[in-house]
Amino acid sequence: MGEEERRRVFQFIDEHFGDFVTDLTDYCAVRTVSASGEGFKEGGRATRELLEKWGISAREMPVPNGPNLVVGEAGSTGPILCLYNHYDVQPEEPIDEWKSDPFDPVVREGVFYARGSSDTKGNALSQAIAQAAIQDARGDLPLRLRFMIEGEEEVSSPHLNAFWKRHQDLFEADGATIEGSDHTAEGTPILRLGSKGILYVELTVRKAAVDQHSSFAVSIPNPAWRLIAALRTLRDENGKILIPGFYDNAHRPTEEELAYLKRNRYDPEDFMKTYGAVEVLGGDTQWARLQHMVYGNTCNIDGFYAGYIGDGSKTINPAYAKAKLDFRLLPGQPPKDVLKAMKAHLKAGGFEDIEVKSHGTFEPATTPLSSRIGQALLRGYQAAYDDEPDIFPWSLGSSSTYYYTSLGTPSAAGPGVGHAGSKAHAPNENIRLEDARRGIKATAAMMLAFAKSD
Amino acid sequence: MGEEERRRVFQFIDEHFGDFVTDLTDYCAVRTVSASGEGFKEGGRATRELLEKWGISAREMPVPNGPNLVVGEAGSTGPILCLYNHYDVQPEEPIDEWKSDPFDPVVREGVFYARGSSDTKGNALSQAIAQAAIQDARGDLPLRLRFMIEGEEEVSSPHLNAFWKRHQDLFEADGATIEGSDHTAEGTPILRLGSKGILYVELTVRKAAVDQHSSFAVSIPNPAWRLIAALRTLRDENGKILIPGFYDNAHRPTEEELAYLKRNRYDPEDFMKTYGAVEVLGGDTQWARLQHMVYGNTCNIDGFYAGYIGDGSKTINPAYAKAKLDFRLLPGQPPKDVLKAMKAHLKAGGFEDIEVKSHGTFEPATTPLSSRIGQALLRGYQAAYDDEPDIFPWSLGSSSTYYYTSLGTPSAAGPGVGHAGSKAHAPNENIRLEDARRGIKATAAMMLAFAKSD
Repeated sequence: MGEEERRRVFQFIDEHFGDFVTDLTDYCAVRTVSASGEGFKEGGRATRELLEKWGISAREMPVPNGPNLVVGEAGSTGPILCLYNHYDVQPEEPIDEWKSDPFDPVVREGVFYARGSSDTKGNALSQAIAQAAIQDARGDLPLRLRFMIEGEEEVSSPHLNAFWKRHQDLFEADGATIEGSDHTAEGTPILRLGSKGILYVELTVRKAAVDQHSSFAVSIPNPAWRLIAALRTLRDENGKILIPGFYDNAHRPTEEELAYLKRNRYDPEDFMKTYGAVEVLGGDTQWARLQHMVYGNTCNIDGFYAGYIGDGSKTINPAYAKAKLDFRLLPGQPPKDVLKAMKAHLKAGGFEDIEVKSHGTFEPATTPLSSRIGQALLRGYQAAYDDEPDIFPWSLGSSSTYYYTSLGTPSAAGPGVGHAGSKAHAPNENIRLEDARRGIKATAAMMLAFAKSD
Repeated sequence: MGEEERRRVFQFIDEHFGDFVTDLTDYCAVRTVSASGEGFKEGGRATRELLEKWGISAREMPVPNGPNLVVGEAGSTGPILCLYNHYDVQPEEPIDEWKSDPFDPVVREGVFYARGSSDTKGNALSQAIAQAAIQDARGDLPLRLRFMIEGEEEVSSPHLNAFWKRHQDLFEADGATIEGSDHTAEGTPILRLGSKGILYVELTVRKAAVDQHSSFAVSIPNPAWRLIAALRTLRDENGKILIPGFYDNAHRPTEEELAYLKRNRYDPEDFMKTYGAVEVLGGDTQWARLQHMVYGNTCNIDGFYAGYIGDGSKTINPAYAKAKLDFRLLPGQPPKDVLKAMKAHLKAGGFEDIEVKSHGTFEPATTPLSSRIGQALLRGYQAAYDDEPDIFPWSLGSSSTYYYTSLGTPSAAGPGVGHAGSKAHAPNENIRLEDARRGIKATAAMMLAFAKSD
């Protein structure tokens, strides 16, 4: 891109940055919690109207049994770039720990606080503004953008697959960005070329019709102990997953990955500061911790419930116990295979009494840095920052990237507005406004680079 | 006791049985949940007024940092019999499973439903009526009764010990009954000569200041897995407790116990019907199941909490996890020793990160059948029922019996109003009115037998 063109694009972004804050305030105030099914209609409408406001032709497309998926189109020539995001957000619990109302956004000392600000309403809005900046600077768009914003990502998009099968043409493009990446604590941008996969399951075991006085536990089995026995067959105390075959086909590091990872300055030890973690796994060096984080699988306990969990003591043998687990997966570990192997493993271990329910999956996927989208992202970051991005083969979190990559559409995380302390999924979710300003610029520069390399 | 005297006593009870229902309705409507501290003042006052109504001289005695303990006295000559009960009740959760309001008693088909009806407001009231029946039939009482009704039993009486140390004279008597026993499903009365002990603890482990996105679990330890690892060092999958020395001094069956247990028809298999239990532990015969139930220890999980436990999926690595456990103990296994050994065991296993909080204890205790109170109970049951009672060395649940036995006051469960399906501590707690009618008669007959054997 020309220097002058980029100057005009960035100037537009600076001049309209107040609109970003205003529009994001309105957008985050729309309560769209997919876990409880809140705000389905309002979320789709607000998303469509937001895109239209920034000059994008948008429509709400029905997703069978799910909330509408908003498709926005801008530009009529050049390569096609899909821009995937979602308008739903995580539940706000534990509500006590929020310093301000999660759905009444506030800015404190340059930081914007609201549920969904980083994950991912802020990213959807930043892309809409980026394309408006290009249109304003050039008078046209040198590429075709397809915004695709769904409403069920936070519950693992249970109905997206059916939509995808019917509308594969929408997912076929020259490239795709998935949500938005974030920044390190120091403001270094992060380039993520895919995402880990996920399998989310709920395990339930019932040993009686009702809770009983705990003294009867001598005669009636306790379901929490039984669930613990089952869980212990899935993972050892060092985190190793014990399901047979789990690791067999997992992606192995490539030369390209190791080359950019060795330049990557990210240190998971930052979690100690950001989340108050008491320790960080993987080893004593940044390189060991980084490799562990990137190439490690998890079987995580998202939730465990049994019996009486209020204050004080209540002596009961609970009727049932349940646990919510998620497995984070690498390319080569399809969630459906893991689910099948897990069920077979439990059965083989005699745990026929454990009911397994799948809450949805995302496929793992990665795209080479040498791809068109990989190169456009790299150049976008170089244009908007005084710094090289830290590059990862995938995000730790899961995303819908597989819907694109499986159709031959290379995809990666777009430039984003968040940072390492954005607390996505936790109380006090937030974005730093200066990260957002640079993220919008990198997005616009990435779009221009993507058009040029055609 | 004479036939004619007993006839008059039983007639009074039949004539006043309507008062039992009316008074219990009012008494159970007083919300006295000790776990949340509700109804402390109202509970003590209602208890005192109820005793006074039935001709007992009553006073509320302050318990330092706890609710008042109500002491009622009747009779001026003869042996002293203490009658221990409590006016506090378990929390009503899960409230959804109650068919009627737990604090708005109703009678449906001869069954009285309310929280506290069986545990133990119904028993306190039945004893008050039993003594009134004797007074009415004889014109006097041939023994001295001391009603002692406290307000914190359901949270393991954390302040009773301090009260006891100051007022040991109140606990010194010729015998004591502790709460009330119950009936089998078929209506056979149960005689319990003591109670198991209990240690109730809460284990907490925190691995971060806040919940995080679950993808970070690859780098930040999950507290639920850590808690599970600790729990697994306390108990194996067969229920055996792994704390060193735990079983060393546990009570061994005596000849007297084995003799009456062999005549005991109770079969824990009833739990399958009563509670919808999917299986019952101990073995394939009634005798095996009965011995297991009586002489078995438990490390029960009363509650387990971590992370997101609502509907659907939320992907988090929780900041902390906690479990509530109770150990049921036999004579020779003092709760304090078990707590000390458990803490040492966790420490030795490297679990310094597990915080252990004790929620209170009850000492285990038993009294021989050949004791005065044992014999009075046996004769009381024989007078009021066409059947021999099933006899146990102790109740499965814990009680304050140790406060009496340790001072040389033989104690056992009194005749009671409940039955195997009373669902103490569970939704739809209830008593069958015909059990209550016979239980009051057995109580009166026991009082007369206790006086006579002097």
